[in-house]
Amino acid sequence: MKIYKICFIGASGHWGYLTQGMTSLSNTEFTAFAPSFENENLTTLQNLEIHGQKGKFYQNYLEMLDSERPDIVSITPRYDLIAPITLEAIKRGIHIIAEKPLAFSLEQLDEIKEAVQKAGIRLGIMMGIRYEPAFFTAKKMVAAGRIGEPLLIWAQKSYRWGTRPEWYKKRATYGSTINWVGIHALDWARWVSGLEFREIAAHHANLAHPDFGECQDIATVQAKLSNGALAVFNFDYLRPAQAKTHGDDRLRIAGTKGVLEVIGRENRLYIIDEQGEHENEPLLTPPDFIADFLNELEGKGPALISMADAYKITEIAIKATMAADRQQRVWL
Amino acid sequence: MKIYKICFIGASGHWGYLTQGMTSLSNTEFTAFAPSFENENLTTLQNLEIHGQKGKFYQNYLEMLDSERPDIVSITPRYDLIAPITLEAIKRGIHIIAEKPLAFSLEQLDEIKEAVQKAGIRLGIMMGIRYEPAFFTAKKMVAAGRIGEPLLIWAQKSYRWGTRPEWYKKRATYGSTINWVGIHALDWARWVSGLEFREIAAHHANLAHPDFGECQDIATVQAKLSNGALAVFNFDYLRPAQAKTHGDDRLRIAGTKGVLEVIGRENRLYIIDEQGEHENEPLLTPPDFIADFLNELEGKGPALISMADAYKITEIAIKATMAADRQQRVWL
Repeated sequence: MKIYKICFIGASGHWGYLTQGMTSLSNTEFTAFAPSFENENLTTLQNLEIHGQKGKFYQNYLEMLDSERPDIVSITPRYDLIAPITLEAIKRGIHIIAEKPLAFSLEQLDEIKEAVQKAGIRLGIMMGIRYEPAFFTAKKMVAAGRIGEPLLIWAQKSYRWGTRPEWYKKRATYGSTINWVGIHALDWARWVSGLEFREIAAHHANLAHPDFGECQDIATVQAKLSNGALAVFNFDYLRPAQAKTHGDDRLRIAGTKGVLEVIGRENRLYIIDEQGEHENEPLLTPPDFIADFLNELEGKGPALISMADAYKITEIAIKATMAADRQQRVWL
Repeated sequence: MKIYKICFIGASGHWGYLTQGMTSLSNTEFTAFAPSFENENLTTLQNLEIHGQKGKFYQNYLEMLDSERPDIVSITPRYDLIAPITLEAIKRGIHIIAEKPLAFSLEQLDEIKEAVQKAGIRLGIMMGIRYEPAFFTAKKMVAAGRIGEPLLIWAQKSYRWGTRPEWYKKRATYGSTINWVGIHALDWARWVSGLEFREIAAHHANLAHPDFGECQDIATVQAKLSNGALAVFNFDYLRPAQAKTHGDDRLRIAGTKGVLEVIGRENRLYIIDEQGEHENEPLLTPPDFIADFLNELEGKGPALISMADAYKITEIAIKATMAADRQQRVWL
């Protein structure tokens, strides 16, 4: 049995998608971790122990990659560093699971695509919500024709503001809320419906957190999809601290034969089909995030998130951000 | 005590908003009714009896207005006839409660405004959902500062298709789904938040009812509001026949201090504020639609829907329809 050596760069994102599964997988090994920038808070990774093993700390991630020669690297850095660190890992022929968006610009994204093709590695993206039972089941239901052809989509991301790092204050390091938060909802819309984005208009603004003026706390997206279907999205950091859950993820798709709705905070799927209303549709069990990725590496079938998906959803988020910045529609 | 003589023109809309209250009001009298166009189905009005009194049938509504000289006329005709019939009633100095939108074009709307000013009558509009407890309470909660300043709005209208009259097949007689259905959600957004629309983009299409090709069964609206707040809306006729309720009205407003959500089909108000989550906020009792209108006529204070509201929401719906038709943003 091949043992996959896994290293971690940065602790600013969802590295937990990997470690959660690793604790019950005997073919993975937590070997090392490094910060993505000086003084990044790595307490969580420092305290992490998997199968009784702690990771080795490196100050410099390039040194870590060169010394450890991992099979897979988890890249969850300050968001502007996702692309440059990803490029370094690709050069070294290491498989990657990176935070989203893969890049802040279309040029960076093209550079990554080209480099991946040359290196022949598998690049994964942390669209982890696809692995939540309600969303996973929604995808299966739509694919099975339960709601007919999808025609109208609404999706929401709403988060508590909580405490955000200093580098959320600058777009140069943060990017945009459409890129960091909204991208999930854009991904569900596309993945669950099976439709492609064709035209996007968007708005974003910071109205409630003046100290973080360049970090948008509200955003909306309006889109036309490949079959003529329409979609709207709203994203915010306005969820009160007193709310029971950090987030309030929602997805609603109305089709020719029915309507489905995912209420993420309740892990609930609500379907109205030709048989009537189903307030609590039984949920399927999705695969584990990292196990699914390893399966594909071993030729046992495609993971839920293809490399094409990772590229496309990054492109969509970048273009939606452009649409908001320029106040112009963009086409795909 | 003054007795208000009330006549009805047409049975193609929500005349029930009046008759519901009239059954328990001793100062109203159901005197007569007439069709708005040849062969309009008036069975419901023919069978209607209020305080043991049936209305007199007229074939011609002008003859009815001239003979009966009602105090108030309910105008719920084929939608293209709302404006011309309203103009006829205004000319005769009769108070009006008309279906929405008041007009299909801005020119028609201006004509109505001018005529009303000359005649000095009160023109009401059938934004009856304002009188539903959950929406009414939402308005009061926001006005009381429960969620702070409103910054992000989402609202939905979703209806069963059911059986629609032949004249839904032509835009000339139907208008648009933004005008007929979406207008409610646009009204809640504005009324509950207390904000004004500034910029609108929209889409609409018919993808599921080819026999009714000119009646849009999906539509979306994206807007910027007066304080910089953002809003998105989705409207559809895709609600399955098997759903428990005809409609699924939703409104969500996220503010600086909290989030509220109206789930219309459950008459439920869900609030998260600085005290935590309230899944079932106690609802206030709104006034009765027609009693509220009569109160204003008698100088006992303003009704929930002002005449300015009736004009403004018609303007917003007309402009949103234009935005969808022309695929261009419109400003207000």
